Amino acid sequence: KSTGGKLAAPPVAHYNLNNVTTTPTPLENSENVLLLTPMARFYPEYWDNIMRLDYPHELITLGFILPKTREGNDAMRELQKRIAKTQQQGPEKDRFKSIIILREDIDPPLVSQDEKERHKMKNQKVRRSAMAKARNSLLFSTLGPSTSWVLWLDADVVETPPTIIQDLAQHDQGVLAPNCYQRFWNEETKAMDERPYDFNNWQDSPIALELAQKMSPDDILVEGYSEMATYRTLMAYMAQEDGRLHEEMPLDGVGGAALLVKADVHRDGAMFPAFAFYNLIETEGFAKMSKRLGWQPFGLPNYKVYHYNE
Amino acid sequence: KSTGGKLAAPPVAHYNLNNVTTTPTPLENSENVLLLTPMARFYPEYWDNIMRLDYPHELITLGFILPKTREGNDAMRELQKRIAKTQQQGPEKDRFKSIIILREDIDPPLVSQDEKERHKMKNQKVRRSAMAKARNSLLFSTLGPSTSWVLWLDADVVETPPTIIQDLAQHDQGVLAPNCYQRFWNEETKAMDERPYDFNNWQDSPIALELAQKMSPDDILVEGYSEMATYRTLMAYMAQEDGRLHEEMPLDGVGGAALLVKADVHRDGAMFPAFAFYNLIETEGFAKMSKRLGWQPFGLPNYKVYHYNE
Ligand SMILES: Nc1nc2c(ncn2[C@@H]2O[C@H](COP(=O)(O)OP(=O)(O)O)[C@@H](O)[C@H]2O)c(=O)[nH]1
Ligand SMILES: Nc1nc2c(ncn2[C@@H]2O[C@H](COP(=O)(O)OP(=O)(O)O)[C@@H](O)[C@H]2O)c(=O)[nH]1
Ligand SMILES: [Mn+2]
Ligand SMILES: [Mn+2]
Repeated sequence: KSTGGKLAAPPVAHYNLNNVTTTPTPLENSENVLLLTPMARFYPEYWDNIMRLDYPHELITLGFILPKTREGNDAMRELQKRIAKTQQQGPEKDRFKSIIILREDIDPPLVSQDEKERHKMKNQKVRRSAMAKARNSLLFSTLGPSTSWVLWLDADVVETPPTIIQDLAQHDQGVLAPNCYQRFWNEETKAMDERPYDFNNWQDSPIALELAQKMSPDDILVEGYSEMATYRTLMAYMAQEDGRLHEEMPLDGVGGAALLVKADVHRDGAMFPAFAFYNLIETEGFAKMSKRLGWQPFGLPNYKVYHYNE
Repeated sequence: KSTGGKLAAPPVAHYNLNNVTTTPTPLENSENVLLLTPMARFYPEYWDNIMRLDYPHELITLGFILPKTREGNDAMRELQKRIAKTQQQGPEKDRFKSIIILREDIDPPLVSQDEKERHKMKNQKVRRSAMAKARNSLLFSTLGPSTSWVLWLDADVVETPPTIIQDLAQHDQGVLAPNCYQRFWNEETKAMDERPYDFNNWQDSPIALELAQKMSPDDILVEGYSEMATYRTLMAYMAQEDGRLHEEMPLDGVGGAALLVKADVHRDGAMFPAFAFYNLIETEGFAKMSKRLGWQPFGLPNYKVYHYNE
């Protein structure tokens, strides 16, 4: 690569982590947001939704990781089409700062992507361990020195308020989860309705802690299975119709469907354990790890985002 | 920033993690190495040593993190002087691919940098927890999608073989530690001599495991203190004068003085726990975490690097 001639000096970047702010008013401070999405399938509604984010797109970097499967290839094609349209043909204000797409380098565990199959309890440890590694690969490869916030958003979260970044950041929490719901057609009322979807946002219960204590350190305690009732307080059920939108509750476990994290929480070392960590794994283990690092996770029971309905 | 005119489309980077190889022959495959150094003091000998690395500098990115102290400011100034000289005035082949310098954003714990003071057992937990966070900040902020290897090298490691990258990579291990020694003037023999320095590379012992079991989960078991004899097998003492240079031994704890890590080990989530993890912390906790993620750490008792002698 040497041309024999004089090359420009290679780049030296200085970053004083002190100068990168992470404040309740990210817009005023032009804070960089890294939006991270593990993506097994592409949903046009997901893209339409992030296009509507009214946080300046020039401050948002997108990061994706897709599995090395046929389904992953399909998603990749769809994703690239939408990216090309936005970044090359769309209006300037719609364009994101930069986009990084990773493909997984491990074969995914042999569990189907069908909702029924992937939710079976016996499949959870191997599936969630693979998901944890995918999230970590994405995180470690994309977080930069000037990132202020990381917004985790699953590929099947198809509706959020356009102000979600500002709304969540204003709470000034290290880890903050909105409530993930699902819209559906209610046969009884013959009208659209909504129901809780993500059960990974919870507060611990004495019974769950006792259950964990009796388990081997390598076992994991997953949420949302009647075979293993934990009696945890699930944020999914805590939404109140007349409740304050910005009501906060402390959480011991979080889901990854939508999650705003201060970049410093990750920089301190908080990642998604792919192994049992206090009998927790992936996003739930991440909550525990954040807490151990001094960042108490919180949730917003009345602030809703919506999961795709398969 | 909008000029009203047409801007070039923002960058879209594609990375197939599959295309980034991490092989026993990194040179042949032009693999990118990220050389990471937490730096409280600047030693000219450290810089002279990395300048002698005969792995193509254009494949090496340097990353530093310095504390926000007066000492850190001094180190910063010295470091920048040497960087300017190398990157702007030096011959092209000496220049590194890029250099990222971070300053810590937390005040360091009030422990003096003097060797005696920093090695006191009661200071270890707070000091090593701070070191773990510094290492994680550096790692999370600099690892990119095209990094193949991470070489951890302390700022006071002043002598390594120039081929250290190739030599260690050829072992094809996820985590590999050379033996960290120290040169000194032997008053008895009236000649230069060497002695073991880094005691964090070790194999577990039944006694250490028993000690740990009796501790609270939040306590840490540190190595090299007579107050708490662990009877672990220390790699520092395993060097054999007539031993094979490339002799390997499995390790349960590693130090950070010099350590070659496959980027995928970090991407799977292996970081430096700033909290007690199986009663281990920082680099020793990292070894345990790597192992839990399926990457058994190894050490090379006869392959030496040298620590500064204060
Ligand atoms: N990279 C990657 N992403 C995946 C994989 N499996 C699922 N995902 C994505 O990870 C997120 C969570 O998975 P999902 O199956 O929706 O979990 P659930 O909604 O909790 O059942 C979604 O964005 C998926 O598209 C995988 O094997 N690799
Ligand atoms: N960023 C940062 N680096 C540090 C700090 N303290 C020590 N270091 C660096 O971290 C490495 C290990 O620390 P050191 O004091 O040498 O540990 P020891 O040799 O095991 O006693 C060296 O490269 C130090 O220069 C700190 O507070 N912040
Ligand atoms: Mn989902
Ligand atoms: Mn040292």
